[in-house]
Formats: sequence, C-alpha cells, structure tokens
Amino acid sequence: MSKVAVIGVGSSRFGRRDDALLQELAFESVKEALIDAGITQKDIGLSVVGSVGTREYELQPAVPVNDYVGLAEKGPIRVEAACATGSAAVFTAHNAISSGAVDIAIAIGVEKMNEVDVQTSTAAGGRGGSYLWEFHMLGTSFAAYYAMFARAHMTKFGTTEEELGLVAVKNHKYAAMNPKAFFQKEIRIEDALKSRVVCSPLKLYDCCPITDGSASVILASEEKVRELGVKDPIWIEGIGFGADSGNLPRRDDYVGLPAARSAAQMAFKHAKAEPKDIDVATVHDCFTIAEIMAYEDVGFCAKGEGGKLIKEGQTYIGGKIPINIDGGLKAKGHPLGATGCAMIYELTRQLRGQCGNRQVPLHNNMALAHNVGGHGYSAYVTVLRA
Amino acid sequence: MSKVAVIGVGSSRFGRRDDALLQELAFESVKEALIDAGITQKDIGLSVVGSVGTREYELQPAVPVNDYVGLAEKGPIRVEAACATGSAAVFTAHNAISSGAVDIAIAIGVEKMNEVDVQTSTAAGGRGGSYLWEFHMLGTSFAAYYAMFARAHMTKFGTTEEELGLVAVKNHKYAAMNPKAFFQKEIRIEDALKSRVVCSPLKLYDCCPITDGSASVILASEEKVRELGVKDPIWIEGIGFGADSGNLPRRDDYVGLPAARSAAQMAFKHAKAEPKDIDVATVHDCFTIAEIMAYEDVGFCAKGEGGKLIKEGQTYIGGKIPINIDGGLKAKGHPLGATGCAMIYELTRQLRGQCGNRQVPLHNNMALAHNVGGHGYSAYVTVLRA
Repeated sequence: MSKVAVIGVGSSRFGRRDDALLQELAFESVKEALIDAGITQKDIGLSVVGSVGTREYELQPAVPVNDYVGLAEKGPIRVEAACATGSAAVFTAHNAISSGAVDIAIAIGVEKMNEVDVQTSTAAGGRGGSYLWEFHMLGTSFAAYYAMFARAHMTKFGTTEEELGLVAVKNHKYAAMNPKAFFQKEIRIEDALKSRVVCSPLKLYDCCPITDGSASVILASEEKVRELGVKDPIWIEGIGFGADSGNLPRRDDYVGLPAARSAAQMAFKHAKAEPKDIDVATVHDCFTIAEIMAYEDVGFCAKGEGGKLIKEGQTYIGGKIPINIDGGLKAKGHPLGATGCAMIYELTRQLRGQCGNRQVPLHNNMALAHNVGGHGYSAYVTVLRA
Repeated sequence: MSKVAVIGVGSSRFGRRDDALLQELAFESVKEALIDAGITQKDIGLSVVGSVGTREYELQPAVPVNDYVGLAEKGPIRVEAACATGSAAVFTAHNAISSGAVDIAIAIGVEKMNEVDVQTSTAAGGRGGSYLWEFHMLGTSFAAYYAMFARAHMTKFGTTEEELGLVAVKNHKYAAMNPKAFFQKEIRIEDALKSRVVCSPLKLYDCCPITDGSASVILASEEKVRELGVKDPIWIEGIGFGADSGNLPRRDDYVGLPAARSAAQMAFKHAKAEPKDIDVATVHDCFTIAEIMAYEDVGFCAKGEGGKLIKEGQTYIGGKIPINIDGGLKAKGHPLGATGCAMIYELTRQLRGQCGNRQVPLHNNMALAHNVGGHGYSAYVTVLRA
C-alpha cells in the first residue's frame, strides 16, 4: 500500500451561486487546486467527481464537469454518499493511487442546491430512512432526524438549547473571518436562541444552509511527491469509513452515530494515532447537535460531554481542540458533494500554516476530518499529517 | 498492489420487473453471489453500489439497497458512470482491496428503469453531450448519437444494415438460451431489417431494451482467497479505464470510441496480454453498431472490419472470438448500473465452465469485459483469468 499525500487544494466561494453553472463552479476549485499543486490537467491520471446531483436532471453530473474543467479524458467515475460524498471521492481517489492504478488523482466535490426547493432537499434526506414508515407515513424530513437526536441527547445528558446555540455562535464567528464562507456575519447566542423553530428543539440557527459550492483535492503517490519535489505534502495517514441503517428503529441509541464511531476507530488505527494527537479538526455540523455528537463520536470528549466542551470554549482556537475554524457546514455552508473535499482543503491549509488570523497552533502537525452521510448511514474520518 | 479475484457472482433475472422494488432486485443477485462465494454478509468489508438512479427520487439508491440486503454497515459509497456504472463499482471495490483497505468487497449493480418513461431515459443519454447545442437545440437523444456512429461507420467502411442486424440475430440466439435474459426468443435477419426505424439507420432490433435488473460481484484479496480455500478464483489481471468528452464536435472521428481504446490498452498492459489471448468476451452492445465498434476498439479485428467479423460468424461459439454469449445488452437487457457487473457474472461462469449449452471452449482461460458509459464518455475494460 503506497503512501498518498495531498499536493493541491482549491475551493470556490460557497453561497448562493446563481452566477455559475455546475461545471463553472467546479472549475473555480479545480483551477485553484492545479495552481496550488503546480501541475496541469495532463499530469492527472484519474478524476473522481463527488456530487449527489440534487437537481432532477443531474443523472450524470461528472460528464459536463470533467468536460468543462479539462479532464474529459480522465474522468470515468462519479461517487455519491449523501452528505459524505466529498469524502467518498477522496477515498476513491486515494485507493486508486495506493492500489497502483494511477499516481495522481483529483477528487472534485461540487453541488448546486439553490435551484432546488428546500422541501425537495430536506425530503431527500428523509428518504434515506425507512421510506414507508419514516418518510411517507410520519413525514420525517432531514431536520426531523437531527431534532430527534437533539431531543435524545438533551434528555439523556442534559445538553441544553444554549449549548446547541453556542456551536452556531462559534462557527459564525470563524465564517466571518473566512472569505470563502457563505455567512459573513457573527451572531450572538441571543440571536440563535430566539430564531424561529424549524423542528423543535432545532431553530433556524441550528441548521446549515442550502449551499452552492465546490472544492477539489489533488492526491499523489509518495514516489510522485518526491519526483515533483512537493515542498509541503500533507500525508493521508488513515481513512476510516463506517455505514449504518437509514432506519432509526434499527439503531441502538439516538445520541451518537455508530457509523462515525466506526470510521474514527478505523482512521485512528490506520494512522496509529489518538484523538489527543489532533491539532485541528473539521466535523460534520449539518445541525448544531451533529457537531456535539461528533466531538463525542470521534473521542475528543467522553459520550455526553459534548455540550460541556463547547460551553467551556474548548473548540475555539486556543482551546483543547479547535473545531470547524472554517465556519463549518453551519456557517461556511454545505454543498453536499463539496463538503468532504472542503474539509480537506481547510485542514491542508491549516497544517501548512496558511490560515492567517484563523490559524490554529500546531503541536503534532495532525488534523482530522469527520464527514457524515445523511443521518448517519455513512461516515468517513480522515487523519492528515504535515 | 495485492492481487484480487472474483470469488462469487450473482444475477437477478433481467426484464420488466414490476414485481420487485430496487432493493429486492438487488437482493436477488447479492444472495446468489453470497451463496456462490460461500460467505455471509459479515465477511464483507465494503459494499459498493453501482446505480445511475434513473428514477427522479433515487438521489441515494445505496441506502435502501444496503439496508435491505443486510449490508447497512458496510456500504458508505455508491458510484455512477452512466452505462458503465457496474464496471466503475467493480473498479472501486477492486481498488479498495488492492490498496489494503479491506480484504473482501462486493460490487452491487442495480437499476429499475421501466418506471421511467423511455423519453426521459433516452434524453438522459443525450444530456451527457453538449446540453445546449446537441441536446437542447438539436434534440440529440441517446439513440441519435449511435445512429450518427452507425452512419459514419457505414460511410467510411461500407458496413451494412444487414451486418448491424446480424449482431441482433446472434445476441437474440444466445439470450434465448439464457434463462436470466430479458428476451427469450430468437429472431431472423428479416425481422431485424424490417423492424421499425428508431433513428435511421438504427431500427428497433438494433436497440437494447429499457431493463430492470441487478448483478453482484464479490472480490477478495489473494491472501483471503487462500484463507477461504476458494477452489475456482477468477483473477482480475487488469482493469483499464478511459474517458472522453461528451461533446461530439470534440472527437476526432465517429467510427469508434477513444475511451474504449484507451481502456483496452490499459487493461491489456496490466494483464500482459493481447486480444488473441482472449477466449470469450462481453462487449457493450447498447446498439448493434456499438458491438461492431467494440470488436475494433478492443482489437479483435482491425478498424473497419467489424462488420465482416459478424458476417463471417466469427463471434459465435466456435468462431474466432465468441462475444456476448449471454445475449448482450441487446437481448439479455441493459439495466444501466447492473450491466458491468453482469458482464463479470457471465465471464466468471464461462471461465469456470458453468455455462452449459452456452459454454465456450477455453484455450487460454482468459476473458474480457468491455463496458461503455453513454456515447463513449467513459469506458472500462477488464481482463480475467481462471
């Protein structure tokens, strides 16, 4: 198994991007990643497009994307894993290199969601569960699943609505410092607590926005890294994955995501590392409760203590473990297919020390990305090292 | 790079399958593959679902499929590569094993297409090209692309409508001997030639049918093959891939598919083999002209001589290179996501000598699968050895 490194990353501006077609949005991040890596399209052996294809005619989103970005001859595959699609693309590109099939591969995550109405988007999440019982009979939308997780966590561990809101406050703070983020304004805890209820106990500021955006990650084999003379390769030390039923009644509890726990364990095992080794992380905060569950599922704190971790400010820069310093899904935005790649974009730049006023202090030069599909029916955890 | 073998295959009956949900259709082939491999779901490390998701609400087809077939905890990824989706799933599962991520993986190809109207299905193929110019302005549907290839081939090489029809005659003959095939009746060349025009020069019998079906392939590492004591592993000697623009004006010619030629070259190089070493092949005959181009692109004959190859009967059992002895896409059927896996299903059984009255004689114990995405914007060629 050949070692694989990130050698280039790029990201579009996230937001409502009516100004760009899907393929144009993809090109914004591909171009930046190519420049970052110092290579051109002809150096790439394989292009893996990650896109859920939320718009009804996007049966084959990889074709127009690869055509437009100059990778038509390199792109025979598109992957999808709901909200973890970007990570699935990185996983696929990584394996194509470590298996020896190619020596350089790009994972292009892209999604245009704002042309779809919000009902369709949230219904799509709900359809991942039991179609008949959860979605059709009970009308369980995507937000409803996470509202149930929040209620269970509050009941079992005493997690409060304020703690949920504090996650939003943190992530908006950092998004306001990140020019690529969707939301560019800080919020106060009072704003979060008095925002309108979406699905109790989740309020507007507990939910990530429907977002357009793209992010790209270029990976290379150890040999190629040497050959290209890459100055600052960011090594992939481990990629863990997990999966689970989409049907809630088949889960043992509702206060965490077993798929994410399995993914974290697998990633740490491959990386021969522990949660305490990580300097900075991005976790999947599609809803604020998801960030709190992620703290616990990855092992940054014990189960039930996620609310305390944010309340103490431990996930800010300067805290025990800085998390979602790019603004997270919550405030940077969550274009489904792009999110997993955008996490690697942020962490690569953090590990290179390129994040300016958002730069976290580095002790072990290790970072971790945690990306969840839907309401926990898939998950990827990736451990990086400078 | 660890060697990888096929250790189990399964296939549903192909056809109009209103009797089964997507996940039930998938289970038909998963169950057969598990029994064939002599393992259970718990032995599998990764499930890769290949499905285009032709129905408008199938944004995440892998979730209900993995849930139903008992692989909920193993399935964090779905892949898509238009009509080559099944091969993309095999490629992804293969790389996950050869990279060392898992030691057993399953590729599940599945599609339900009959609930979608035929206009939507053929338009989807057209959208793979230039949306504005080819699809929207000129109304180029999927059949229209292949009609253009046929016209170009006829003009340049003198290929005849009769030669196209002879491909259908052969594939119907073998489908009638294959209980899993959609069409169970032989046709005569007169039937083909007098069938109604779909898109000139292609007539009804030149086109594959809209099909429901699934096929599954279980792969294992060399070490696992030994550990399990697999009696008849079928080794993957090489997987080649290629890709190309979906926009016809960007192609150099219209008498073959560059993506398929690249894929074949890569596969033969990995396998250290040549076309003459192959005992039996499945090629992508979504339209009869596609089978003739495939003969040439893979190298079973020189460019322009594909029509002669079928006219001489060289692709029947007993001929120079028996092709599509399962009935092909043309008569066995073409459920997009399933097709690539169904090719490996057929070839594995041929190489094991399990095909009864459809069994081809084996000389070198090598087989080849050629699977194309759309009108040639992706392609996979896989070389197998007993």
